[in-house]
Amino acid sequence: MPHISLPEGMPGILGPMNFSPETAAPMNALANALLQTDEGLNRGERELIATYVSSENDCFFCQTIHGAVASHYLGDADWSFVKAVKCNFEQTTLSDKMKALLSIAGSVQKGGKNVTTEQIEAAKKQGATDKDIHDTVLIAAAFCMFNRYVDGLATTAPTEENVYRLRALRIVDNGYSASAPYAPVTS
Amino acid sequence: MPHISLPEGMPGILGPMNFSPETAAPMNALANALLQTDEGLNRGERELIATYVSSENDCFFCQTIHGAVASHYLGDADWSFVKAVKCNFEQTTLSDKMKALLSIAGSVQKGGKNVTTEQIEAAKKQGATDKDIHDTVLIAAAFCMFNRYVDGLATTAPTEENVYRLRALRIVDNGYSASAPYAPVTS
Repeated sequence: MPHISLPEGMPGILGPMNFSPETAAPMNALANALLQTDEGLNRGERELIATYVSSENDCFFCQTIHGAVASHYLGDADWSFVKAVKCNFEQTTLSDKMKALLSIAGSVQKGGKNVTTEQIEAAKKQGATDKDIHDTVLIAAAFCMFNRYVDGLATTAPTEENVYRLRALRIVDNGYSASAPYAPVTS
Repeated sequence: MPHISLPEGMPGILGPMNFSPETAAPMNALANALLQTDEGLNRGERELIATYVSSENDCFFCQTIHGAVASHYLGDADWSFVKAVKCNFEQTTLSDKMKALLSIAGSVQKGGKNVTTEQIEAAKKQGATDKDIHDTVLIAAAFCMFNRYVDGLATTAPTEENVYRLRALRIVDNGYSASAPYAPVTS
């Protein structure tokens, strides 16, 4: 049960976002600016960073919805690749550049000061630009916010994969929003 | 030295915000929605939560600028009260309600799932509303983002208190922004 009275039938972050639309608007604008672009890192790579950090923060709702969106972009129909990345990205077929960026994201998740010059140099050596590094750090930082918002209020989350698959399609088509098109899907 | 090439003469979060104005805009909009209001918690209380979480995250820039803003609102001219709150808020003259909310903020800083039903009940018993609890959780979560953004890119920060005192006055007058009125003050 959530720690405060949230609107009924709104799973995960949608509950608090509908409780507080004045803060939901800039949060969704940030998510769209960070995730709904292919400038530098593509959408699949951005969602993968979001998913990995949410997994490290043990946030079920965020890792599942962003994992579903990442799987959509990456053509990972059965979610096996995204699950492997969450489990141990070093053992996957991800590019060395993405592995270096996920390593940075993992350090940001633990705390900003954990990012080392060696990690940054390794990423640059693999072709990461300043913008790639900036976006990786900010995606990782932003999900340390989103994850804490979702779990700090003890929101509830659906367990059926299909709910997330359907919601992911809506996000792919329309971007992030707390408004009606993203209302919960009855499974 | 910052991990990426940031605009010159822009301390703390202003460097990455000017590097990436498209993400800075919603981040500042979120800061204003969360901190620049007296609805429920007042501005001083909101800035105090931001300062405490930034201190727990060991983010020098954020705890100093938000501490300066909090001190302004709280009439804490020599910053001694804000420093005491950062050090051990239980030993200060803060209200029991604010102590209960700072305890929740401290749990969010460690991870959303650390917030307990007992902490929520204790806050409600001291008069905290659902909105007070929501705002406390989101302020704490948001500063887990801002702090990681600042330190994950290894930004630089001025050490002179006066720089923060002057910037705080600008924030009090105009709110949060990455634009010119918040450009660095030469001390």
